[in-house]
Amino acid sequence: MNPRMLLVLFFSCTLFLQAQSEDEKQLKAIYDMALTDGKAYDWLNYLSNQIGGRLSGSVQAQEAIEYTKRQMDSLGLDRVWLQPVMVPKWVRGTPEFAYIETRPGITTNVPICALGGSVATPDGGLKASIVEVQGIEDLEKLGREKIEGKIVFYNRPMDPTQISTFSAYSSCVDQRYSGAAEAGKYGARGVIVRSMNLRLDDYPHTGAMSYGDTPVESRIPAAAISTNGAELLSTTLKLNPEIKFFFKQSCKQYPDVQSYNVIGEIRGSEYPNEIMIVGGHLDSWDLGDGSHDDGAGVVQSMDVLRLIKANGYRPKRTIRAVLFMNEENGLRGGKKYAEVARQKNETHVFALESDAGGFTPRGFSFECTDENFEQIEGWKSLFEPYLIHMFVRGGSGADVGPLRDENIVLSGLRPDSQRYFDHHHAENDTFEHVNKRELELGAATMTSLVYLMDKYGTVKPKKVKG
Amino acid sequence: MNPRMLLVLFFSCTLFLQAQSEDEKQLKAIYDMALTDGKAYDWLNYLSNQIGGRLSGSVQAQEAIEYTKRQMDSLGLDRVWLQPVMVPKWVRGTPEFAYIETRPGITTNVPICALGGSVATPDGGLKASIVEVQGIEDLEKLGREKIEGKIVFYNRPMDPTQISTFSAYSSCVDQRYSGAAEAGKYGARGVIVRSMNLRLDDYPHTGAMSYGDTPVESRIPAAAISTNGAELLSTTLKLNPEIKFFFKQSCKQYPDVQSYNVIGEIRGSEYPNEIMIVGGHLDSWDLGDGSHDDGAGVVQSMDVLRLIKANGYRPKRTIRAVLFMNEENGLRGGKKYAEVARQKNETHVFALESDAGGFTPRGFSFECTDENFEQIEGWKSLFEPYLIHMFVRGGSGADVGPLRDENIVLSGLRPDSQRYFDHHHAENDTFEHVNKRELELGAATMTSLVYLMDKYGTVKPKKVKG
Repeated sequence: MNPRMLLVLFFSCTLFLQAQSEDEKQLKAIYDMALTDGKAYDWLNYLSNQIGGRLSGSVQAQEAIEYTKRQMDSLGLDRVWLQPVMVPKWVRGTPEFAYIETRPGITTNVPICALGGSVATPDGGLKASIVEVQGIEDLEKLGREKIEGKIVFYNRPMDPTQISTFSAYSSCVDQRYSGAAEAGKYGARGVIVRSMNLRLDDYPHTGAMSYGDTPVESRIPAAAISTNGAELLSTTLKLNPEIKFFFKQSCKQYPDVQSYNVIGEIRGSEYPNEIMIVGGHLDSWDLGDGSHDDGAGVVQSMDVLRLIKANGYRPKRTIRAVLFMNEENGLRGGKKYAEVARQKNETHVFALESDAGGFTPRGFSFECTDENFEQIEGWKSLFEPYLIHMFVRGGSGADVGPLRDENIVLSGLRPDSQRYFDHHHAENDTFEHVNKRELELGAATMTSLVYLMDKYGTVKPKKVKG
Repeated sequence: MNPRMLLVLFFSCTLFLQAQSEDEKQLKAIYDMALTDGKAYDWLNYLSNQIGGRLSGSVQAQEAIEYTKRQMDSLGLDRVWLQPVMVPKWVRGTPEFAYIETRPGITTNVPICALGGSVATPDGGLKASIVEVQGIEDLEKLGREKIEGKIVFYNRPMDPTQISTFSAYSSCVDQRYSGAAEAGKYGARGVIVRSMNLRLDDYPHTGAMSYGDTPVESRIPAAAISTNGAELLSTTLKLNPEIKFFFKQSCKQYPDVQSYNVIGEIRGSEYPNEIMIVGGHLDSWDLGDGSHDDGAGVVQSMDVLRLIKANGYRPKRTIRAVLFMNEENGLRGGKKYAEVARQKNETHVFALESDAGGFTPRGFSFECTDENFEQIEGWKSLFEPYLIHMFVRGGSGADVGPLRDENIVLSGLRPDSQRYFDHHHAENDTFEHVNKRELELGAATMTSLVYLMDKYGTVKPKKVKG
């Protein structure tokens, strides 16, 4: 190698090391500030304990919009605004009630809750024989003869051998989402679904369901039963297939109502037209206070903007925190955000979602090109001191999904998933189950990725289609 | 390359792949069984909820010995026995009581607990002026003049910017361990120590302290104050340095009593004289039920033996689960085990300790030669599907420490540490704060390492000293 080449190499290495060291310093400053002066936990305390569950269309959802807007207004961002979006309004009504009747007059109560979007039972409740299945695929085997007039009880549990509890959820949740529509085709009068919960306990877990194209008059009511309740019901059924099941719920779908996404923005200093977003969803189910799902993602996203500003980092690109409305039962906020972005011809280069709970962050999943993934993998060592080790290809998140195109890097924060479904969509998704440090580490991890993405930019596709 | 070499390479690769695949299958079988048919959680339920806190020398410690012996007896091991060890017996006595007196008759109660090993206050309690310090090193700066006759209040908090909460603990715990002995040298009448807890709450956290060589008559009482209490005390002191602090505790050290380590063993089929151990400590502090510290490690260690047997794996080496007595306030069990091993000329090649809580396992730390660490690092990919990513050099555990020599690989399970000190040595170290899956993943992770260590053996030192 000639001396000039050596010199070039020397300076390249020096520059590289300086850059590394600059990034290391920035990440350290971000984590330090998140852990010593984070605001996420205080914000979550307010959202959870002063406002509570924030189902789309509810008074609490509107309060959450106003509260987060006010908080973002106080951060000195370049712009904070509400993006109007019409959302469905489903109301649970009187608390649900259910029992197993082993013979007339001999009953045992079991904890249930209506699934989100379900119709009510008749006013006096619904009592019928019950048939247990291990999934939608069992319906065809049983046939109309064995289903008609009965309540179908979906009881396939989440698979405990899946290390990612989200995988276990994915392979079960069709029972909840489509169970009623499918069972209705065989003449079932209602469905009861085992809660999506790996633990045995007494909490029924709600969640979205859909009737698909079932005509309104043919829709049958659907409820979740706690895992302990499901075990009891299954055992009782085995002992006596003639038992009856009774349940009563008065939930109702109202016309769509006006709501909003809440958006805060720091304008980019060099490429203001390249937009990066971080987000979570502001709505939640109504049983708990929605601390993990997804109060955590909301306050972490807000803290990303605050940490960037507070650390004196001036982003090159425009960075937005988007608090999406209606992820749980409609995804209207996510769809609206993408729709408006397309109308305005905005260029989104990166979108990061946090919607997997406020637990210890382990890493990220990415939907992106090989070139972008390679760049991101190059940053792994920067995250090692913070025990962030997962950089995997995989689904990002529901709310950022509608932005998907070939120019954008989509990402999802991946926290430790073991405890998530103990709380998901249930009465015990509450503030005291969020650990302050775990929440703050998530915010710092998100901020660090946004910082790197902004600094180095995404890798543009080689051919941009006309 | 000549054809013969190619053939050799081909067969080597094939053998390697087969071995990989065999190991992958074994690990999968271990994790599957731990997650579907684990016993750790049930055992912990009994230890925590039927027995409770198990301080050395207490009735509960004896019950725990008998219970775990009985459970191991039922596993069909080759041998289960009790190893006698004399342990200290310290008793808390009447619940402690403390208040801040801003002026005569105007008092505010604060939550305290005696530190383990502390002497009592005088019968009527101790009331004195109070001086706040940020650590032992401040004592010299203040000097006898400003300390004599007062209560010293150690208030250096754990550093929240440490990602490993154990690092934050290590750099603070000298205040608790040696604070009384050191302050006594300057004529202090007692010490109050900020609880080793990163969170602000109302739980005082106990833990071991030592008077060193302080003569009995010169020993001063020491108590922990909750973090909220410490904040209140510090603020009150700033407003009015003349306030008094009162505390009363009636704890007492009794003569040593007989106790036991509980040991279960599967005898090795090929190298029975090479001994591998997994362990946790059976004693706990008395305030909570010791679920995380260290009920978790105890039941995980027991489950390692059960999982090995239940998976039909016949170990080449002798594997023992050792449930150590008296880790918390004496380490007598760990010392006794090593002493007996040396007396019997036993060869211990591997010792794995779980004493960092029943949280999601992240990996292991190792004290071993470079050659052994290199071999272990070669197994990293086998652990990846289970999100086990930390293979680091570092401290293993207190109980296996006395076995340390150049022939042994010492290791500690490293669970996620964020929540550990919320519960450590406090009233809220209780069963409901242990997640079943997290506990089981820990047991499976330990079993997997033991399986690999047994199968491949440790790398022997090149020169064995005479």
